[in-house]
This record gives sequence, C-alpha cells and structure tokens, in this order.
Amino acid sequence: MRKVDVFTHIFPQRYVERMNQLVPGLKDAGKRVRGVPMLTDLDIRFRVMDLYDEYEQILSIATPPIEAYASPADAVDLAKRANDGMAELVRRYPERFPSFLAALPMNAPDEAVREIHRAIKDLGACGIQIFSNVAGKPLVLPEFLPIFEAMVGHDLPIFIHPYRDASMADYPTENRSQYEIWWTFGWPYDTSVAMARIVFEGLFDRWPSLKIVTHHMGALAPYFEGRLGPGWDQLGARTSDEDLTVVLKRLKKRPIDYFRMFYADTALFGAYDATVCGLKFFGVGHTLFASDAPFDPEKGPMYIRETIKIIDQLPITVEERARIYSGNAVQLLKLSR
Amino acid sequence: MRKVDVFTHIFPQRYVERMNQLVPGLKDAGKRVRGVPMLTDLDIRFRVMDLYDEYEQILSIATPPIEAYASPADAVDLAKRANDGMAELVRRYPERFPSFLAALPMNAPDEAVREIHRAIKDLGACGIQIFSNVAGKPLVLPEFLPIFEAMVGHDLPIFIHPYRDASMADYPTENRSQYEIWWTFGWPYDTSVAMARIVFEGLFDRWPSLKIVTHHMGALAPYFEGRLGPGWDQLGARTSDEDLTVVLKRLKKRPIDYFRMFYADTALFGAYDATVCGLKFFGVGHTLFASDAPFDPEKGPMYIRETIKIIDQLPITVEERARIYSGNAVQLLKLSR
Repeated sequence: MRKVDVFTHIFPQRYVERMNQLVPGLKDAGKRVRGVPMLTDLDIRFRVMDLYDEYEQILSIATPPIEAYASPADAVDLAKRANDGMAELVRRYPERFPSFLAALPMNAPDEAVREIHRAIKDLGACGIQIFSNVAGKPLVLPEFLPIFEAMVGHDLPIFIHPYRDASMADYPTENRSQYEIWWTFGWPYDTSVAMARIVFEGLFDRWPSLKIVTHHMGALAPYFEGRLGPGWDQLGARTSDEDLTVVLKRLKKRPIDYFRMFYADTALFGAYDATVCGLKFFGVGHTLFASDAPFDPEKGPMYIRETIKIIDQLPITVEERARIYSGNAVQLLKLSR
Repeated sequence: MRKVDVFTHIFPQRYVERMNQLVPGLKDAGKRVRGVPMLTDLDIRFRVMDLYDEYEQILSIATPPIEAYASPADAVDLAKRANDGMAELVRRYPERFPSFLAALPMNAPDEAVREIHRAIKDLGACGIQIFSNVAGKPLVLPEFLPIFEAMVGHDLPIFIHPYRDASMADYPTENRSQYEIWWTFGWPYDTSVAMARIVFEGLFDRWPSLKIVTHHMGALAPYFEGRLGPGWDQLGARTSDEDLTVVLKRLKKRPIDYFRMFYADTALFGAYDATVCGLKFFGVGHTLFASDAPFDPEKGPMYIRETIKIIDQLPITVEERARIYSGNAVQLLKLSR
C-alpha cells in the first residue's frame, strides 16, 4: 500500500550552508545537523526510506523556523534557498518525494505571500509549513492574514509545526526551561494555542475552505475534547473583567466543531492509544500519515517504522487505511499521482 | 455499584465567608460562587447527588488556590476554615462524604506541614489538594519538599489540581489571555509541567511510595506518551548550552516510567476515547473515578452523569470497574468503609 509521509524534515544543501553562516544564533540547529545525518545526507535518507514498502516523503525544512534566527532580508533569501533546494530534490527524485511544503520568511509577510505564489506556481510546492507562532507573535495578527488568504486562493493546505524555544518564557518560574519541558509539553501546548486563536478569530467562518494540518495529531484537542466541548461552551464563565460570551455569539458553530475542521497527522512517535483517540476526534478523512522523521532515537527509521505499525493495527477498513496512508494526501496536496 | 467521586469541589460556609471578605482579589471566585450554587448550597448538592446510585463525594475546595489571593497569615486561617468546614460535613453526612482533601496555606510552607498533620490526625482528611504551582513557583522548590515528605509519612495521596490564572503570562504575545486559553489548554499544560519537575527532580526515586493523583486523567502524559518515551529518552539532544544527559543518568528509570507512577482521575468531561487512552497509560490500578463536579454547563449533574456513562462503557471487567469506581479510592485514601 502506498504511503506518503506528509511531515518529514530535511535541510537542503544550499539552505543549510547559509543557515550555518548565521551561527551563533543557531546553536541548536547546528547540533541537530551534526547529530542527525539524515537531515543533510541523501544516501542515508534513501537507505532509511528503502526499509519501507512504497514509502514516499513530502519534504519540509526542520526547525528552527527561519524567522527565529534570521533578519527579514536574510529570511527571504533563506526561504528561497530552502524552496529551490526542495524543489530540485522533488524534480530529481519524483518517486521518493512527490512534493514539498514551502518554507516562508514569516518576519517579512509581504515577501512571504510572494514566496507562496512562486513556490506553488513555479516550483510545484503542495502546501506551506508555518510555525505555531511567528517569533512569539500569534498567527492571527492582521499582518499574517494575507498568508491564510493566499493559501485559500490556491486551495492548498497550511501545515502548522510547533515551535517554542528554551529562551521563550513558558512559565514565570526560576527554572522554566529545564528538562526540555518547552519541547515535550510546550510544543503541543503552543500548537493548541495557535489552533484556538484561529478558531476564535473566526478564520474558518471567514474562509470555510481553509485547510490546516496540525502536527502531532491535533496537539491537545483530541485528549481534551471535553474542555473544548462543554468546557468552552461556558466561555466567559471564568472571566469577570470582560464579557467573553460575545465571542461565542460571533461564531457560527460551537468552538469544538471548528477544531474538527483541522486536519491532523499521525506523528505521535509510537503511541497507539493516542492515535486511536485522535482518529476518533478528527475522523479518517482528516487524518494523514506522517512520522516526523528523522527525529527519533535511531535518527531516522524508528518513528517511520512505529507509525506504520500503528496504522497497520488500527481497527479500520482497507479503504480507510489507504486514505490515511496516501488518499487524503493525494487529494489535499493535489499530488499528480 | 458504589461510586466514590474523588475530585468534586465545595466552598464550606465558614471558608467562603472569609474568602469573600478578601475581594477584590477574588473576582473570579466571587463569580463562581454566584454562578454555581452547588458550590455553597447543600440542598442543591444533595439533589444532584441523589440522581446517581450509590454515589459519594470526596470533598475539596474549588479554585482559586488560597495562596493565589491571601497573605500567608490569611492563608493559614483560610485553610483551617476550609478543613474544619469540610470535616464537619463529613461528620454530619458520612454516607455522602466519606472524607475530604485538606486545603493548605502553601505560601506558608511550615504552617502547611502543621496543617497536614492536624487535618489528617484530628479531622480525618484522606489526602491533600495542592495546585500545579504555588503562586507561580514550581512545586519542587526546597521550601515545599517537607509537604511531600509529610504525605509520604502518612502514606496518603497528594492530589494535584491545575491552576494558572489569566494574569499569569502563558505566552509572550499581545493577547495571551484571550478566550480562556489559559484554562482550556493552560491548566493541563501546567499540570504536565508540574509532573515533569517531580519526575526529573527525582522525587519518586527519593520516595518510591509517594502517591500523587493528577487531575484530568494525567493531563498531557497519555496522549503524548511518544514524547515522554522515545522523545524524552533523547533529553539533551535539543539543548546546546548544558549537558542534560546527566539528568537521565541521575534517574533510576526512563522518564516515561515515572509518569506511570502517578495516579489519574477520570475527569475528562465526557471524552470517551481520551478516557480509554488515559486508562491504557495508567492502568486500572492507577485510575480513580472523578467528575470535577459542579463545573459543567448544567452546574452540577452533567459531568457526573457523563463520566459514569463512560466508565460503564469501558471495555473492562466488573472487578476492574469496581476498582475505578471505589476500590482504588478505598485503598489509596484508606477509607474506613
């Protein structure tokens, strides 16, 4: 059965060269490049990919987001390098890489919109990757809305990848960045915050065809379905200084119904029961196979292998499995085959 | 089948009177008292409780935590009022309220330890309720460790309730407190952060018999099992400026194994699939029935009813169901019947 892994990361050569020049703002990325060879080494990537039958990858760059370390001018250049590099890989290895998600210079929003058009029309990108915040700013600020609008115009999806680095305040405490809590819990939390803002700012009412894929199976939404449902139906009950019930009146649906409009990927690193929970929340039609390779303890194969094992065991029909593995991706990303 | 709801909230009369005097630091609590009559009105509470067969409640006070609004001196008085009030209800209505969780003045840690001994020995408390942070401070600071130690001495559980109010920075953005995101996602996030600190500070190695019940089915742990497991096995891979691998070497087990040492309650507000996911993570022996009544849209009955409906549908044996409903509680809280 064909498997299109929609969220796997890579550093194209011409991108990583420039990225490394911008050190020391990039210590962590530098460490990742050194520690995870599959990010830059195609031979290693191909050997890993060959372990799995009919396995293909949609490419996207790895964290950190460009805007987290580059000036707007550098960011524009870096995004072009990333996208030109990924487009070249797709051209050279179409059987392995059906397409890629464009990287954007989000700290230069006008240029980001231009890069969306170039990446999709000239380079064949099938979507974009943005992050759960733009160097700390919420995605729903007016300056970023043209990016959503452009993707609605192309009818192609926005992939939201979490990002929150150790230096961002995740809690007003003495030891807030300890133990990589900012990664383990902070990343899904931040994805969830981004989703909530998109919902409550009414972006799905404004653009009902907006398509957003949330990494790691919808972050907190499925497990906290009860908080999204009856919990958020009481929006305003916990707030005294302003009347938040007007927010609910402004929306056309219950908050939880908007959360089900997101798409989710299966990148849960081998968690079977959570995958079942997420699938029940989003449904087969909104669930896409992804592994988040190569960021596993084996630096490549493990999360692909474990995620395939889980999808193969899900209590669904063959047709449903085929949709999760590739059918939804072909449709959503408008892949040519 | 007997059902002991281990996490339900109340404001005893002598507590709420003093709490209300400390307004305006307490706007939200004031609103809750007005908006959720079951918090203070026993007749309403009994009518709701009578809707369910063999249904009993372990009492604990509702948020905000005492230390979030009271000076240390006031907090000591407030905790005594809360505990005396709950103890009196347990004495008067033993069939309805088998016991209570003591409230503590966490901003006066020495007094908190004294109050633990008084509440357990003199008043019959079966555990304590603390919050996921102490007015913003992590629970694992040295000043709070005697509280853990005292509970290990009594061999009774610590219940961790989330708390994070709208004024706490949850993200460095312009509209960080919007839409009660601080409640929906912030509370489980904060519980998870507290759990992580307890794990990585080695509290379970220091006190293997330490018993901690985490509200809302273990917060993010079960759904993000993959991040706790293979994700945190790579602790240090994402950090350049210090060597976090020493943290793993200091611990006796894998991080995820400690997370399974926590207990969890079923207060997921009607989310069946999440309950299954959480139960698989913690196991029947570490899962306790709780509804979080009365904070539902019906102001009392809904979360009790929906949680019972879920537990009745779980694919487990009658014996396992009985453990979740009351057996685990009787054992863990050392209830006299």
